Amino acid sequence: MTDLLVLTAELVDIPSVSFEEGALADWFEAELRTLAHVDVHRVGDNVIARTGLGRDHRVVLGGHLDTVPVNDNGGARIEGDMLWGLGSADMKGGLAVMLDLARTVTDPAVDVTYVFYAREEVALEHNGLRELFAARPDLLAADLAILGEPTSAAVEAGCQGTARIDVTLAGERAHTARAWMGDNAIHRLGSVLAAIEAYEPRQPEVEGCRYHEALQAVHVEGGVAGNVVPDRAMVRVNHRFAPDRSPDEAVAHVRAVIDPHLRRGDTVEVVDLSPAARPGLDHPLLGSLLERSDVAVRAKLGWTDVAFFSEHGVPAVNLGPGDPTLAHTRGEHVDRVSIERVRAILGELLGAR
Amino acid sequence: MTDLLVLTAELVDIPSVSFEEGALADWFEAELRTLAHVDVHRVGDNVIARTGLGRDHRVVLGGHLDTVPVNDNGGARIEGDMLWGLGSADMKGGLAVMLDLARTVTDPAVDVTYVFYAREEVALEHNGLRELFAARPDLLAADLAILGEPTSAAVEAGCQGTARIDVTLAGERAHTARAWMGDNAIHRLGSVLAAIEAYEPRQPEVEGCRYHEALQAVHVEGGVAGNVVPDRAMVRVNHRFAPDRSPDEAVAHVRAVIDPHLRRGDTVEVVDLSPAARPGLDHPLLGSLLERSDVAVRAKLGWTDVAFFSEHGVPAVNLGPGDPTLAHTRGEHVDRVSIERVRAILGELLGAR
Repeated sequence: MTDLLVLTAELVDIPSVSFEEGALADWFEAELRTLAHVDVHRVGDNVIARTGLGRDHRVVLGGHLDTVPVNDNGGARIEGDMLWGLGSADMKGGLAVMLDLARTVTDPAVDVTYVFYAREEVALEHNGLRELFAARPDLLAADLAILGEPTSAAVEAGCQGTARIDVTLAGERAHTARAWMGDNAIHRLGSVLAAIEAYEPRQPEVEGCRYHEALQAVHVEGGVAGNVVPDRAMVRVNHRFAPDRSPDEAVAHVRAVIDPHLRRGDTVEVVDLSPAARPGLDHPLLGSLLERSDVAVRAKLGWTDVAFFSEHGVPAVNLGPGDPTLAHTRGEHVDRVSIERVRAILGELLGAR
Repeated sequence: MTDLLVLTAELVDIPSVSFEEGALADWFEAELRTLAHVDVHRVGDNVIARTGLGRDHRVVLGGHLDTVPVNDNGGARIEGDMLWGLGSADMKGGLAVMLDLARTVTDPAVDVTYVFYAREEVALEHNGLRELFAARPDLLAADLAILGEPTSAAVEAGCQGTARIDVTLAGERAHTARAWMGDNAIHRLGSVLAAIEAYEPRQPEVEGCRYHEALQAVHVEGGVAGNVVPDRAMVRVNHRFAPDRSPDEAVAHVRAVIDPHLRRGDTVEVVDLSPAARPGLDHPLLGSLLERSDVAVRAKLGWTDVAFFSEHGVPAVNLGPGDPTLAHTRGEHVDRVSIERVRAILGELLGAR
C-alpha cells in the first residue's frame, strides 16, 4: 500500500504556486496516462481522468493543483506522522488521496471523474474550474462532486455566497478653516458604519446545516488634503450570505441596511458577487455515505469552488485532510491520520468491487 | 506715479513657484539696492530692506515671493483695471505695494523693515520666514508686522491655530466568512466619526474679533483585503482653534472629544501643531491706523505666517489686495482699486513726512 504521507510530500516538493502549475499538471497527466481504466484529458494546466464503466451514477473527485506563494515553507519535511510544507494541507494531501484512488480503485461502483485544476488561490476569473466549465462542461457532468479542500476530514456542505459592495458618499469641499462652508463626506461615513456595526447577522439552517452570515466593512478611504473638508469617502462592505438567498436577494438585503443613510449623489456599486451553494446532503449518494460512516457534517461558511458545481446543478461538498485554519500559514502541515481517514471515506463512497 | 497694476503684472511675469524663487529674489534685491535709504540683506532666497532712521517704532511689511504651481494661468494679462495671472492675488499685488512704498516713502514716521521671503506655499518646515527667524531674528525685530496676503484690503487680525491628529483604532483580524472571530476596526470608526460630526465648534470673541473653530476628519483609511475583517483603521482630524487657546489646550480639547471612544491598543498621534495668533489690535500703531481710516477688521480663520511674528511677541495682521477666495484658483486675478487702496492704507500707516 502506498504511504500517502510520503506521496503528499512528493507533491509538496513539486512547486506549483498559482500560474506556475505546469510541472505538477505534467506530472499528474503522466501518472494518470499509465492507468488503463481512465481516459485522460488535458485542458491548459487542468488534468481530467474519467472512468467509463456505464454505472448509474458519476462522482467528481476534484482538487486544485496550485498553492499560495512560498512563505519560508517551500520544501516538504516529514517528522513522524506529520508533514510540513507549503500546500501540505491546502491541498496536496487531498490530491494524494485522489491520485491513490485513481490508481487503485480500478472497478468502482460509480463512475468517477478525477479533476486536477489550476489557479484556485487567485482571483475567480483565473480559476481553472471556471475555465473547464466554459471549455468542456461535458467532462464535468456528474451526479455529485467532492472537492478535497482541507476540512479535517469532515464533510463541509454547501458554501456561503459573497458580495462586495462599494458605497461612496458625496460631500462638498471647503477649506477646514471655513469648514461650515463644506459638507464632510468622511463624517457621513459615521452613520453608515454605525448601521453596519449594529447589524445582526442571520444564522439560518438550510438542509440541517447551520450557516452564519456576516456584513463587514473591509476597506475605507477618503480625504483630499490635510486642510480640506473632503467631498468623497468610500467604504467597501463584504456580505457573506447563506444558500437560502440568491445573489440578488443578498444585494437587496445589504441595500436595505445602507440605503437609509444615503442621499442624492451617493453611489452603491456591486464589485463582486458569487452565489452560495446549497448543502446537497439530500443527494442519495451522499446520504448513503453519511449513513454508512460516522463522518462529521457541517456548513461551509466561506465561499469555495463547490459553488461552480452547484451553479451547474451538481450537488457538491468539501471533504479533505488537514486543518483548514492552517491553510496559507507558514506552519502549514498535515498528519497521516487525517489523510488516511479521507482515503477510507472516499474509498467507501466509490464502493470498490 | 507708478502704475501698480502694471508693476504687479511685471512681478507675475517673473515665475516664482515655490523652491524656484531665485530669479524674483534677485530682482527684488537689485531693485532695493538702488535705494539709498535702506540697508539690504540677502539670506538664501529671502530679501530684507531696512530703514535706519532711529524712529520710536519699527514696522515690518512682509510678503512671500512664491506662488503655487502653474495652473494654465502662468502669464500676466491686463484687461482694463483687472490683472489675471498666477500669483496676481496671492500675493504679487501686495509685493508691488510694498516695493512701491520702499521706493517712494524715503522718510517715514516709523522705521520700516521690508521682508520678501521664500516658500510660504509649501510645508511649514520650508518656510523662508521660519528660516529668517532662525538665522537672523535681529533683522525681524519690530513693534508690529503687516503681511500682504490677499484680504480684499481689510485687516485680518490674528489667525487660528491648527492641529492635525491621527487616531488609529485597533481590532482583530479574521476571515469575513467567520467574522464573529474578529473585531472590525473600521466599524469602530463609526462612533469616532459620529462624535466628530456631533461636535459643536466654538465661536469665541477675542479682542473684539469673532473666531470660528472647526473639527474635521480630513483623511480616513483602513482595510486589509476583501475577505478580511480589518484590524486597523485610521482617521486624521484637523482642528482649527481660536487664539484664546494654546496648542496644548487645543490638543487636550480634541482628546476630550475622541478619547471616550478609544480603548487599549488605539493610538492618538499629533502630527502637526501650529499656534494661533492673537489679533494684536490693541497695539497703538494699529489702533491709531484703524481710528484714522475706515478699513474693515475681521478675524483671520486660517493659519498664516502672522503666527511666526506672534510667537516672537510681535503683533501681526494680514492686509493685502485681492480676494482671498481666488488664491490658488486658475482664474486668480486682482483689481487696481484693491491694490491702490492697500497702498493708501499702508502709506498712511508709515506716515510719510
